[in-house]
Amino acid sequence: MTLSVSAAEAAPDLAASASAPVIPSSGPRRGIGITDATLDPIGFWGRRQNVNARATLQHCLQWMERLGWLENFDRVARGETITDRPGWQFSDSEVYKLLEAMAWELARSADPGLQTAFDALVERVGDAQDADGYLNTAFGHPGLPSRYSDLAMGHELYNVGHLLQAAVAQQRSGGDDRLVQIARRAADQLYEEFGPAGRIAVCGHPEIEVALVEAGRAFGERRYLELAGLFVERRGHGLLPEIPLLSAEYFQDDTPVRDATVLRGHAVRALYLTAGALDVAVETDDRVLFDAVVRQWENTVARRTYVTGGMGSRHQDEGFGDDWELPADRAYCETCAGVGSIMLAWRLYLATGEVRYADLIERTMFNVVATSPSGDGRSFFYANPLHQRERGAEAFDGVNNRAESGVRAPWFDVSCCPTNVARTLASLGAYLAAADEEGIAVLQYAAGELRLGGFSLRTETAYPEEGTISILVQSAPERESRLRLRIPDWADGATVMVDGAEPQPVEPGWADIRRTFAAGDRIVIELPVEPRFTWPDLRIDAVRGSAAIERGPLVLCLESTDLPAGVGIDAVRLDVRALPVSEADGARVTAEIVALPGTESDLPYASSAPASVGSGPIELSLVPYHRWAERGPSTMRVFLPLEGTA
Amino acid sequence: MTLSVSAAEAAPDLAASASAPVIPSSGPRRGIGITDATLDPIGFWGRRQNVNARATLQHCLQWMERLGWLENFDRVARGETITDRPGWQFSDSEVYKLLEAMAWELARSADPGLQTAFDALVERVGDAQDADGYLNTAFGHPGLPSRYSDLAMGHELYNVGHLLQAAVAQQRSGGDDRLVQIARRAADQLYEEFGPAGRIAVCGHPEIEVALVEAGRAFGERRYLELAGLFVERRGHGLLPEIPLLSAEYFQDDTPVRDATVLRGHAVRALYLTAGALDVAVETDDRVLFDAVVRQWENTVARRTYVTGGMGSRHQDEGFGDDWELPADRAYCETCAGVGSIMLAWRLYLATGEVRYADLIERTMFNVVATSPSGDGRSFFYANPLHQRERGAEAFDGVNNRAESGVRAPWFDVSCCPTNVARTLASLGAYLAAADEEGIAVLQYAAGELRLGGFSLRTETAYPEEGTISILVQSAPERESRLRLRIPDWADGATVMVDGAEPQPVEPGWADIRRTFAAGDRIVIELPVEPRFTWPDLRIDAVRGSAAIERGPLVLCLESTDLPAGVGIDAVRLDVRALPVSEADGARVTAEIVALPGTESDLPYASSAPASVGSGPIELSLVPYHRWAERGPSTMRVFLPLEGTA
Repeated sequence: MTLSVSAAEAAPDLAASASAPVIPSSGPRRGIGITDATLDPIGFWGRRQNVNARATLQHCLQWMERLGWLENFDRVARGETITDRPGWQFSDSEVYKLLEAMAWELARSADPGLQTAFDALVERVGDAQDADGYLNTAFGHPGLPSRYSDLAMGHELYNVGHLLQAAVAQQRSGGDDRLVQIARRAADQLYEEFGPAGRIAVCGHPEIEVALVEAGRAFGERRYLELAGLFVERRGHGLLPEIPLLSAEYFQDDTPVRDATVLRGHAVRALYLTAGALDVAVETDDRVLFDAVVRQWENTVARRTYVTGGMGSRHQDEGFGDDWELPADRAYCETCAGVGSIMLAWRLYLATGEVRYADLIERTMFNVVATSPSGDGRSFFYANPLHQRERGAEAFDGVNNRAESGVRAPWFDVSCCPTNVARTLASLGAYLAAADEEGIAVLQYAAGELRLGGFSLRTETAYPEEGTISILVQSAPERESRLRLRIPDWADGATVMVDGAEPQPVEPGWADIRRTFAAGDRIVIELPVEPRFTWPDLRIDAVRGSAAIERGPLVLCLESTDLPAGVGIDAVRLDVRALPVSEADGARVTAEIVALPGTESDLPYASSAPASVGSGPIELSLVPYHRWAERGPSTMRVFLPLEGTA
Repeated sequence: MTLSVSAAEAAPDLAASASAPVIPSSGPRRGIGITDATLDPIGFWGRRQNVNARATLQHCLQWMERLGWLENFDRVARGETITDRPGWQFSDSEVYKLLEAMAWELARSADPGLQTAFDALVERVGDAQDADGYLNTAFGHPGLPSRYSDLAMGHELYNVGHLLQAAVAQQRSGGDDRLVQIARRAADQLYEEFGPAGRIAVCGHPEIEVALVEAGRAFGERRYLELAGLFVERRGHGLLPEIPLLSAEYFQDDTPVRDATVLRGHAVRALYLTAGALDVAVETDDRVLFDAVVRQWENTVARRTYVTGGMGSRHQDEGFGDDWELPADRAYCETCAGVGSIMLAWRLYLATGEVRYADLIERTMFNVVATSPSGDGRSFFYANPLHQRERGAEAFDGVNNRAESGVRAPWFDVSCCPTNVARTLASLGAYLAAADEEGIAVLQYAAGELRLGGFSLRTETAYPEEGTISILVQSAPERESRLRLRIPDWADGATVMVDGAEPQPVEPGWADIRRTFAAGDRIVIELPVEPRFTWPDLRIDAVRGSAAIERGPLVLCLESTDLPAGVGIDAVRLDVRALPVSEADGARVTAEIVALPGTESDLPYASSAPASVGSGPIELSLVPYHRWAERGPSTMRVFLPLEGTA
């Protein structure tokens, strides 16, 4: 693992990849730019990017206009005395996340209508900025609480963090620098207020850390990195006040970041903070902090992560649970925590080049991020449980409760997920490949074109529905270089074929091809996407005696929609003696339906083990988890109890 | 089942039992008075009643003084402008619950020091009452929000409910009527405000309903029953405003009480409301409402209740979960929900005479109510999970977070449980027996004396540690009458021996002895308290492949304290081929210790079933659940995974 090299060691031509969310100022690897990854519109991800561009961005804009979250900026600009402000104290951040999504989308598509909308929104935001750079519509203006009067819950620095990320996106997507100027003034004000000469404090919701580092990189402003470092180091020393019903752990204020061993408390906060800490470690070459982040990631993945890649076991506090506390039904797995996990894993990949981080990104992309939005891009899951016991109620076209699982809703009272999905899908190209001095690595497979490190590659594939990935070299460097292909951790029995030669078996990990590539070279990867059983660690009590079915990178699920009439999902018992077989992008499994007791009024505990009388084998169809509830409210489960387990 | 008989049908001498929390104005059954049940100080419950009297009452009083919850009344009395009121908006109710506990304790023990403290506290409360009867320290006075300005969350009617229950306790315990006068004025004000000529509204937290009915009974005030009926009927029609992050179900405002089929939402709210609805049904002879309550109780017990009798599966919203959602680790099982469940079951027993309600009371008493307080009566569990994964942190002598399970704490930010335990233990005698026209029923077994229905019985027993219960008739009516003994639902193989004759086998349910009893008669009940395995219904996913061990009415648990050094509780696998054997009031079981993987950093899911290599049999000691964490923080589980279940 290479943590850091001086800037001089970095391959000079790597700096060319400029339209990316994360560009460390040193180190051997650079992610591909968003403008250098073009996805085919019919592919799994290309389709979603286009729906995001055509529907989701507009959807979010309209909702925020409708709810007055945009007018909040106008009212501050007008100097109104505000006593009836709509929206939570962090609603500004949704506007900024939308701006970030729009900026990445502009880099990708340069749509003039979108540019107009973006510019108009930036104008409204900028008009609300105070002369000294302070920018917030929930604090610090007539009728509102004063600036920084509620650091634990006020989200003021969190908001600026998202503003900075939007500005970084604008900077790296081209266009004028109006948003960059706004964001820099806001960040400068923070530096005055909270910098080395300012007050020693942190924001209850991390985000400013990761944003400041990237802003420092993008704008060449070392002070921002310095301030990010201060925020990271201050955390865990009890600077935040005690909040009724919330623990210091909720805010990651229980333990200094460099002493912590696992992620804990509010999942999104923990993931954003840790991504920022990793950035600080990389930029300052801080090995102790870096190792602390790796240790936390490892323990979190090994003991506190769902098979979907989802993180967060508790609705209470939207937080991580204890080790092995991974209930399927009450899994929270907030969509935004999936986004945060990808942010952290991506930074870890860039710093180390280790394949395991790209593996987790794939798992989380296909099973959390892809699960949230509906096909039309106008409704979203906030929580992503692995077991739905009761059909969700139909969502209504109002502000829905985020904790109501089972149905995608157009908007939520806390509506962080739609804009987080939007910015992730708009910038998704950036996670597909990376370049280093030896060549390039293809990290995620999607139909389309990749241009980086002197390569131009065209990928043709129906992945993940099919496992064949055909990569055509359209151009390549005129020297020997390494084309590195990720063989996913689940892909036992994969092969790689180069230019029509005999397919070579490859192990999960990296498959490296070293040669002087030329236009016309073709590499064909075969990944085994036959459905397979997946078994939980015996310490995960919540799914004891159960197994899941995966197919390639997709976690599958059984929906009540696919059950015979009158059969409840809790009566299904999986027969693992019969292997699952492929069916479209899902699978068909053999199961039994057990007879359940009828109406009863006694306690559900007895002095003898319950008899489970089976129906004889029947076959049931499973669909990808990311599509569940698309055919209407349903009951659903990912882990199916095994036949013969009472 | 007899729902209701006219007052004329009721046995006239039953009215004598006056010191009881629930006295329906008609119906064939009356509970024993608190003054008519004398518990031996060394018995299971007698010991707890004495600790409650000697330690808990004073403990609660001191905490509320320390935190300023008592001074809140003084400040209102002084007419202060209050902008810094300590405590939640329902802190007044804790004072009232303490008054109720003190009143019942005064009925039991007539301690002069306690009487002085009680009178002083009543005085302070009374001084804060407005001229029109309104009494609240969080609303309606200078500096505070105005009266009834936050019906959803303000708890104003909830507070009056607990005031009324305290006043009922005073009325039925003797003493002057100062508190009764205060409470009646407060209730009269509510009648003006919310009665037939008032506003159509309900309180977010039910409690006023059950309190108004009892106050109506105690004070002979029909208007209170009328108002209770209005509150019950108004609920479920969306009268409460929408509250961010909370659903109408949380407040039981989603469905009218008479249409609902199961308890849902916030558990304590649901249980208090349903107890009040049952009271209204009984007093108004409303069969439809009565049947609705029975239906809800049955479905809740069958699908939403833990083996401990605990109710409430979700920390989020402190609520019931969906059917079969009964996680062991995240069981909330709030102590107050246990109290509420006993309140409901007791009313159902009085109305129907069915044994199942007394069975649930026993289960809940021994495994929820007895679990909450520490041996010294100065710290409490708020939540009562059935599986503790990580040792709880030591409680500190400040205001603890209620959601931190694993350790009893002296006080909580929301501190409803200590005073609820206190009033329940002080009035516990009232649940031991009941009388009807045919004789008496002994419902719960505790060493001590019972005097009712012309009987005086002396019970000698070391129950639940031992299963022998010896009842000596000290006096009896001079006519044939029925002595009805509850044989608990778990007691397969019980016997009853009368006057030294051959023990007769009896089935769970009622064992009736009909004769003309005479002083010196002795009945010996033998309940089988050998430990036994208990199996969950196969729809409870969270404990699939696991069994619990019970012993008599006690649920047992395994604590890490009793494990060999170095063995984690998650490595224990129960061997159900070897029967558990008695050990003091716990049990010894045979188990295996399985080898768990070492340090790992991969996802805890694999493509092959995990091997579980056992240690060979070892023996482990289990203790009663109600004693867990008494020897310091520990990990714990009630349901143990079975050997051979991966």
